[in-house]
Amino acid sequence: MAEKLVLLNTWWSPFAARVRIALAEKGLEYESKEENIFDKSPVLLEMNHVHKKIPVLVHNGMPICESLIILEYIDQVWNHKSPLLPSHPYQRSQARFWADHVDKNMYNIERRIRMEKGEKLEAAKRELVECLKTLEGELGDKAYFAGESIGLVDVALVPFSSWFYTYETLGNFSIEIECPNIVSWSKRCMEKGSVAKSLPDPLKVYDFALEVNKRLGIIEH
Amino acid sequence: MAEKLVLLNTWWSPFAARVRIALAEKGLEYESKEENIFDKSPVLLEMNHVHKKIPVLVHNGMPICESLIILEYIDQVWNHKSPLLPSHPYQRSQARFWADHVDKNMYNIERRIRMEKGEKLEAAKRELVECLKTLEGELGDKAYFAGESIGLVDVALVPFSSWFYTYETLGNFSIEIECPNIVSWSKRCMEKGSVAKSLPDPLKVYDFALEVNKRLGIIEH
Repeated sequence: MAEKLVLLNTWWSPFAARVRIALAEKGLEYESKEENIFDKSPVLLEMNHVHKKIPVLVHNGMPICESLIILEYIDQVWNHKSPLLPSHPYQRSQARFWADHVDKNMYNIERRIRMEKGEKLEAAKRELVECLKTLEGELGDKAYFAGESIGLVDVALVPFSSWFYTYETLGNFSIEIECPNIVSWSKRCMEKGSVAKSLPDPLKVYDFALEVNKRLGIIEH
Repeated sequence: MAEKLVLLNTWWSPFAARVRIALAEKGLEYESKEENIFDKSPVLLEMNHVHKKIPVLVHNGMPICESLIILEYIDQVWNHKSPLLPSHPYQRSQARFWADHVDKNMYNIERRIRMEKGEKLEAAKRELVECLKTLEGELGDKAYFAGESIGLVDVALVPFSSWFYTYETLGNFSIEIECPNIVSWSKRCMEKGSVAKSLPDPLKVYDFALEVNKRLGIIEH
């Protein structure tokens, strides 16, 4: 049977970008179906009937949901190249820990940077810096979180770097000044074709963030 | 080298109970160190310096944190018996999806049942029933989520059943009336020695919940 891969996608989503990077790392062709989160397609509602969220990877008609679970799936099925997870159980557990740490923190914090004002915004900025500094501690002197090549944690985190310009502009602060090593790391990741072609233009992301806030009635910041 | 397993544990935690069940399923001996969440030990603060939370499984001095990540680790290292995850990538992804669904929903909902009053309590009760009904849909006619034996999703969810009496008493409702299949399933799980010996007495859990609320200044419900 010919492999058929369809990605229920949105160009701006850091979670969808994780899957795009992983598919590119593995050299896999796929059909991208762009979703509108304000008007979800019947296909999305059917394929992810529990959460109704992108990304969904549909492999030969079978849907896989939740970006980190999709990355694990891709890595197990296409294990011929570019491993995302280390094979050793302890190293695997550590990669999963840090990817989970990104998931548990980044969206909750960055959503507040995009949508809050005043003291709530300042608190969210402090939390973002603290979260990124903790990740800098884990990165240490390595080129990538996974060592010499990108792995699960790199793929989980780097899509948020397309949003750094938005956070900095809305929050009036510099992530590069606060967390220079994370910014250097994200630039290093962007030198890889799989990452560069999967991440959106930060200026386009910023316009989109303003549009979403307008639509949600958060016009001024 | 002799294997040394230490579990930083608390008797009442559903997340620690997951690890106790998995270790029992694999027939592994371990040293349990009971932690006091109001006065965390230096060992816990060192072994899980990022989250400072139990459970932590320390295997030959190496700490693994986050209960679902610990379950994956146990299943990979001790793969000689009682697999928790299926081997097929798609089935693995589905087990991970449902275990993640439990994680994303149950604690957030049940915490509000324990601590809120009035309309907020009613909303949390509705969310709990909705969450459990969704899980009942996934369980269907199977004996366990994993089929004929217990697996990742069963181990992730069943510890919350020790808290059902607490939710029902504080919320003045019956989970068995709302979600009879989940209650039957939890009783079926309790027939297994690995589960029965790992879960606390629901009445003791209820007393503990009241004591925590008192300590946090939530005296009346």
